[in-house]
Amino acid sequence: MTGIDDLPIREELKGKTPYGAPQLDVPVRLNTNENPYPLPEELVDRIAERVREAARTLNRYPDRDAVELRTELAAYLTKTAGHPVAVENLWAANGSNEILQQLLQTFGGPGRTAMGFEPSYSMHALISRGTGTGWIPGPRNEDFTIDVEAAQQAIAEHRPDVVFITSPNNPTGTAVEADTVLALYEAAQAAKPSLVVVDEAYGEFSHRASLLPLIEGRPHLVLSRTMSKAFGAAGLRLGYLAADPAVVDAVQLVRLPYHLSSVTQATALAALEHTDTLLGYVEALKAERDRLVAELRAIGHEVTESDANFVQFGRFDDAHAVWQQILDRGVLVRDNGVPGWLRVTAGTPDENDAFLEAVRDLKKERDA
Amino acid sequence: MTGIDDLPIREELKGKTPYGAPQLDVPVRLNTNENPYPLPEELVDRIAERVREAARTLNRYPDRDAVELRTELAAYLTKTAGHPVAVENLWAANGSNEILQQLLQTFGGPGRTAMGFEPSYSMHALISRGTGTGWIPGPRNEDFTIDVEAAQQAIAEHRPDVVFITSPNNPTGTAVEADTVLALYEAAQAAKPSLVVVDEAYGEFSHRASLLPLIEGRPHLVLSRTMSKAFGAAGLRLGYLAADPAVVDAVQLVRLPYHLSSVTQATALAALEHTDTLLGYVEALKAERDRLVAELRAIGHEVTESDANFVQFGRFDDAHAVWQQILDRGVLVRDNGVPGWLRVTAGTPDENDAFLEAVRDLKKERDA
Repeated sequence: MTGIDDLPIREELKGKTPYGAPQLDVPVRLNTNENPYPLPEELVDRIAERVREAARTLNRYPDRDAVELRTELAAYLTKTAGHPVAVENLWAANGSNEILQQLLQTFGGPGRTAMGFEPSYSMHALISRGTGTGWIPGPRNEDFTIDVEAAQQAIAEHRPDVVFITSPNNPTGTAVEADTVLALYEAAQAAKPSLVVVDEAYGEFSHRASLLPLIEGRPHLVLSRTMSKAFGAAGLRLGYLAADPAVVDAVQLVRLPYHLSSVTQATALAALEHTDTLLGYVEALKAERDRLVAELRAIGHEVTESDANFVQFGRFDDAHAVWQQILDRGVLVRDNGVPGWLRVTAGTPDENDAFLEAVRDLKKERDA
Repeated sequence: MTGIDDLPIREELKGKTPYGAPQLDVPVRLNTNENPYPLPEELVDRIAERVREAARTLNRYPDRDAVELRTELAAYLTKTAGHPVAVENLWAANGSNEILQQLLQTFGGPGRTAMGFEPSYSMHALISRGTGTGWIPGPRNEDFTIDVEAAQQAIAEHRPDVVFITSPNNPTGTAVEADTVLALYEAAQAAKPSLVVVDEAYGEFSHRASLLPLIEGRPHLVLSRTMSKAFGAAGLRLGYLAADPAVVDAVQLVRLPYHLSSVTQATALAALEHTDTLLGYVEALKAERDRLVAELRAIGHEVTESDANFVQFGRFDDAHAVWQQILDRGVLVRDNGVPGWLRVTAGTPDENDAFLEAVRDLKKERDA
């Protein structure tokens, strides 16, 4: 039987394993930062209606430029993120992963490098590898905030072509202040200039305002977002960016033509009609996130400040063993490989209760 | 205002323009090889039904491995393409463009090269560029068939890592015989070994059997297909490959996780339930394609033998001027930049009549 390594694949892929959390059949799944609330039935109806309409012309290619969808995404950001943007500032793709891939194909790639401050969203490094972009891990403080001075030094030293700033950061939940983004942007412009990508996948869950207003007058700053979390639509795979129109023009050079299907565009448009309802769930989840932080601390755990829909907690001598013990109690959390820490997604109140009970139970066992 | 070239984009992208046919509002559009038949209403209903079901769990990520869809695609190929394949042989993505991109990220990329025999589907070269893969144009005969000896020599000389063989070829419609594929496969193995990708996007329209059986015992041979044409679902963006299971395993290393949305999977599954009806349209289109060939020849044009749902016709001293003259008569065909030739998609009988009338009219004008 032929194995992967018998094939003429790229050297740097040999011995590697695909990205992906275990998809296990467990009563309470709090491992992939999904929104626990199913879409309301009236939105499900509306999706069926809009997709039915799109299916009537499915023999034709989709709108290659997704103009209606980008217009509605711009309206959504204008309303919620504190800065007016228009269709020319917006671009959409199959998940923010594809957005990031298009940015790396345009601004990174062979002979170029990207930097991110680790631990952070591991796909930044993986998509860099997939696009032939060199990856440079940057530093963080012990409390997972960005050490501005150390980060500036790393940028000046390595002169990366792309700099990723994740706010709120995944898997730690840490928000990045606007001042920090500005300091890193200035450092990146002085060093190269390079593209600075602010990954705000969890932006709607933050205590703080969006960093969107920073794109004004900064053509090398890009904001990346997704409908997977706040819109409760991980299954939809709809990511988008907001930036200077020149950035949107530039990614056209590498985007696959007609990359975004008619059914994806129709479904996303339906969801955007129900923004107010969906953002109501976000408020509920923020309250649950704050409750998780408070109760985990009451149990005696260290908890990283969180602006996201998940919470990083610890510390454990053997985080993976604790992950397994929690799983044995019917709750799936995430072991992101950050030594000493685990990550739990804010679920429904019942799911969070089940998780907290498992953690309390383990604590009792350890103390006994 | 910032322009693309003011941004720190890759050098090789500077001055380039995005791929894409003009999307013009014209009564008869025969320029992008779309299937002219809308999906039957009962399939539209079924899509709405399956998407409604998928939307109920849209807050969860899709099946990352698309197992149900790949199983049904395998059943479809087994039934129609003359060779039994299973879920392990199949992989699916957002259009065959994404399939090709994943293959190039795995088997091509920086420091590697890909070869195709031109003129052919221009995205092969463009996706190569987008993945940092060097592009080597290979030769064809005057009649657009592949010159086997010249192709073997080109492969031996340049030792490409990936070889594209398009059958039926786009934009010429030319089928490639199994013997030719085998000869090129052997040459490619002797030279490197390299991956040979048979792009059968228009396979269902061919007079000949699928080249699928050739994957047996040839782990470096990949067949690429799409639901855009035969399934009348260009708006769906569903491409797939069939190959040795090791190839499917290998592309997992570069595929974006959860790349294929739940709505895409649901829609594709609905369409696969209606295969028989849709393949009935394919038979009608093959008859229309043969009629176009016959009538264009009767008018006095040269026509390239076609196994696809389109026809290449000529010759013209100034093909682009003729393209414009046909457009002035309300019919949009494609100028693919092949000197002396234009391409017309087989539409409905009425659309084809409108096209043929425009061509006859032009002929009269020239003869007057």
